[in-house]
Amino acid sequence: MSRAVVLVARPQGEPRESDFEIRDVPDPEPAEGEVLVRNAFVSVDPYMRGRMTGVRTYIAGYELGDVVGGASVGEVVASRDERFDTGDWVSAALGWRELGVAKAGTLRKLDPDAAPPSTALGVLGMPGFTAWVGLGEIGGVEAGETVYVSGAAGAVGSAAAQIARLRGCRVIGSAGSDAKVEWLRSLGVEAFDYREVPAREALADGIDVYFDNVGGDHLEAALGALRPFGRVIACGAISRYNDERPEPGPRNLGYVVSKRLRIQGFIVFDHQPLFPDFLAEASAWVRSGELQYRETIVDGLEHALAAFAGLFHGDNVGKMLVRV
Amino acid sequence: MSRAVVLVARPQGEPRESDFEIRDVPDPEPAEGEVLVRNAFVSVDPYMRGRMTGVRTYIAGYELGDVVGGASVGEVVASRDERFDTGDWVSAALGWRELGVAKAGTLRKLDPDAAPPSTALGVLGMPGFTAWVGLGEIGGVEAGETVYVSGAAGAVGSAAAQIARLRGCRVIGSAGSDAKVEWLRSLGVEAFDYREVPAREALADGIDVYFDNVGGDHLEAALGALRPFGRVIACGAISRYNDERPEPGPRNLGYVVSKRLRIQGFIVFDHQPLFPDFLAEASAWVRSGELQYRETIVDGLEHALAAFAGLFHGDNVGKMLVRV
Repeated sequence: MSRAVVLVARPQGEPRESDFEIRDVPDPEPAEGEVLVRNAFVSVDPYMRGRMTGVRTYIAGYELGDVVGGASVGEVVASRDERFDTGDWVSAALGWRELGVAKAGTLRKLDPDAAPPSTALGVLGMPGFTAWVGLGEIGGVEAGETVYVSGAAGAVGSAAAQIARLRGCRVIGSAGSDAKVEWLRSLGVEAFDYREVPAREALADGIDVYFDNVGGDHLEAALGALRPFGRVIACGAISRYNDERPEPGPRNLGYVVSKRLRIQGFIVFDHQPLFPDFLAEASAWVRSGELQYRETIVDGLEHALAAFAGLFHGDNVGKMLVRV
Repeated sequence: MSRAVVLVARPQGEPRESDFEIRDVPDPEPAEGEVLVRNAFVSVDPYMRGRMTGVRTYIAGYELGDVVGGASVGEVVASRDERFDTGDWVSAALGWRELGVAKAGTLRKLDPDAAPPSTALGVLGMPGFTAWVGLGEIGGVEAGETVYVSGAAGAVGSAAAQIARLRGCRVIGSAGSDAKVEWLRSLGVEAFDYREVPAREALADGIDVYFDNVGGDHLEAALGALRPFGRVIACGAISRYNDERPEPGPRNLGYVVSKRLRIQGFIVFDHQPLFPDFLAEASAWVRSGELQYRETIVDGLEHALAAFAGLFHGDNVGKMLVRV
């Protein structure tokens, strides 16, 4: 038997312990072409909040009674596919469970000597790829521009802030603690603590691009600060995901016309064919130290929900992970 | 002496008669390279509301004491430039006045046999060009798509709705009177009266593109109805221009991410190099009857403000004009 976390109720507002149950489930057996993986880390990501509501958006909602789905990394413990051997490290989509079976074609083999496997859930995984796609494909960010990144100490934000710097941009970043601001400053980001300095003031010089992870007041401040022909890379709105009732949008959307702004939403999964290009570039940056990352690790699958809930309180510096 | 309308106070909310004065001004004399024009029609356009506040956006605000600026068409009554003769019809930017002097290079000669000169202020002028640029350059509208146009019986809207039809789109249009709806239906537009049918209901089948002239509730309904990868052509927000305090934006901006929407603002003046291409295509459509237009004409410069204010009450079917 092994443990898994199951969704048993649709969260209203902030997810609670009672919305989930930790269950002992029988150990699965791999069929031909499948691989049995023991998760070492499971990912908690803000987009999972939407799936918990059960509404299909770009991705299916979770069914009640299902193990909470999501990305994971682990070691192969049994393989019935020639591409994988016992002991291989893989990135998978097994969700919040200790042990799981996956079709071999859904796995990506990791080289633990090149980078710690956990990075496949962060800087070298979906969050890093999101930052890279957003700045490049969606924002068309160019050297010399000023880019504002909200949630800049998060998994996506810290990658976006650094990649924008590597592309030759001036980068302003917001975060919600002294430690985060200090880390961002050490990376060359003009960081401010939004709890102490209103974003409006921090952006008073103007910006060309806003990488939006937060929504709400940050979006309103950014719309005010954007220069003509500015762009909003609409990646997420973590400040809104637990809203029980949708809040009104910014009061200054009129700037979209008068300043000819472009607001563009995107979902990284649409850009999967570019993943190898991202991985090659980002892996080299990580090796050279030009792209740094932090991880906030919570131990124990039984704390997966606490780790997840912590995302909405800014408990993480860099990527939030659960060590199984 | 001739008459002109001068801005004497910044309107708060809806512009009032007391914000303007009709003055007798000395007849101007053209210098070398200039032309004296007697305006036949002066234009009233929603964007002028922003200029009255005196804040520079993409175009300078009006100064207090200045004649209200804007587009006009008229006849040359004296010319000191070899390109123009007395009796020529021209489109100009002389604003709300009877008689004005313009540099010859700022005028465009009109052929009154090809189309009534007043069309240079509407379907074959800035409003028509706005529709054409919005659908093509900004929206990238393609045959087979469903396009929703708000304010569809206005000068820009009626051109946008018909051009989208000519491009092979299914077109839904909103308007605020029986007469407008009837006209739009005669043009092949699936028109609805937004005072009777909520936009949400009228758009229940989904749309690919929203040509926004109105903002407010129409934008919220459109965001809800847009299909994945849909676009908003953000042209204007006439429902908001008289707001004394900015109103909050739509509650469903979260769709921008989940449906990967693009909201793009534009100002037609940025696209001036394309005007000849537009004029060639639109003139042919007008000649063939494929692009129809209506004009709502108010007589007398002394009623320019009433005509202008009427834009915000939907008093116009098609282009609102003041006959001088």
